[in-house]
Amino acid sequence: MSVEWLDQIKWDDKGLVPAIAQDHQTGRVLMVAWMNAEALRLTVEEERAIYWSRSRNRLWRKGEESGHVQKLHELRLDCDADVILLSVEQLGAIACHTGRESCFYRVLRNGSEWETVDDVRRDPDEIYTKKA
Amino acid sequence: MSVEWLDQIKWDDKGLVPAIAQDHQTGRVLMVAWMNAEALRLTVEEERAIYWSRSRNRLWRKGEESGHVQKLHELRLDCDADVILLSVEQLGAIACHTGRESCFYRVLRNGSEWETVDDVRRDPDEIYTKKA
Repeated sequence: MSVEWLDQIKWDDKGLVPAIAQDHQTGRVLMVAWMNAEALRLTVEEERAIYWSRSRNRLWRKGEESGHVQKLHELRLDCDADVILLSVEQLGAIACHTGRESCFYRVLRNGSEWETVDDVRRDPDEIYTKKA
Repeated sequence: MSVEWLDQIKWDDKGLVPAIAQDHQTGRVLMVAWMNAEALRLTVEEERAIYWSRSRNRLWRKGEESGHVQKLHELRLDCDADVILLSVEQLGAIACHTGRESCFYRVLRNGSEWETVDDVRRDPDEIYTKKA
């Protein structure tokens, strides 16, 4: 299997690149996470966003706990080959672990403070309830 | 002057965070670059995107050579406080140094190759011609 398309990517010194997930219909930027080569290969193979969790140091199949899977529509690469842009369908219409549509829910106001402007769509305690 | 809003950002071990520039009208993701605290402070102060160039190791006032300034409309922060999202008006309708609207002009085809799908709007040689 040729992995030339993966080799063309300029992974950073930790073998990662940032990956932006964007809603394929609204264009809203939902989140940014990181991918290594395996995560990206699997994202394409399984047609869903799979990231590398830097905090847990393992593959993170987006939605594995929450059900908020990101189905892949299109995958783009930037001119420097060091950032990935995913066009996705966000299942549950919630990308953020806070229960909001997007992780970018804070706006800078008056050049001096971050204001939360987006509603919580679902209580995170409800989203991440562990099964007994 | 309070810089609490800057202190709330989780800069990486190099003092940087990724910054995404998105067209304020179309929602198209134009580019990703990096900012340090000074770049972000100046972005807000001057109401235009100012990045930290990792290759040139200096502040980079987007458009300083090309004229393709990004006027700031809105600035957002993600839940982890380690990615910035800029909503911008892209002067010249070209964000990429290749002369394209967006740096994300390559799409993965058949899970195996990057295909350039966007046109060059202006010859880079023309954009970056040095004044005599």
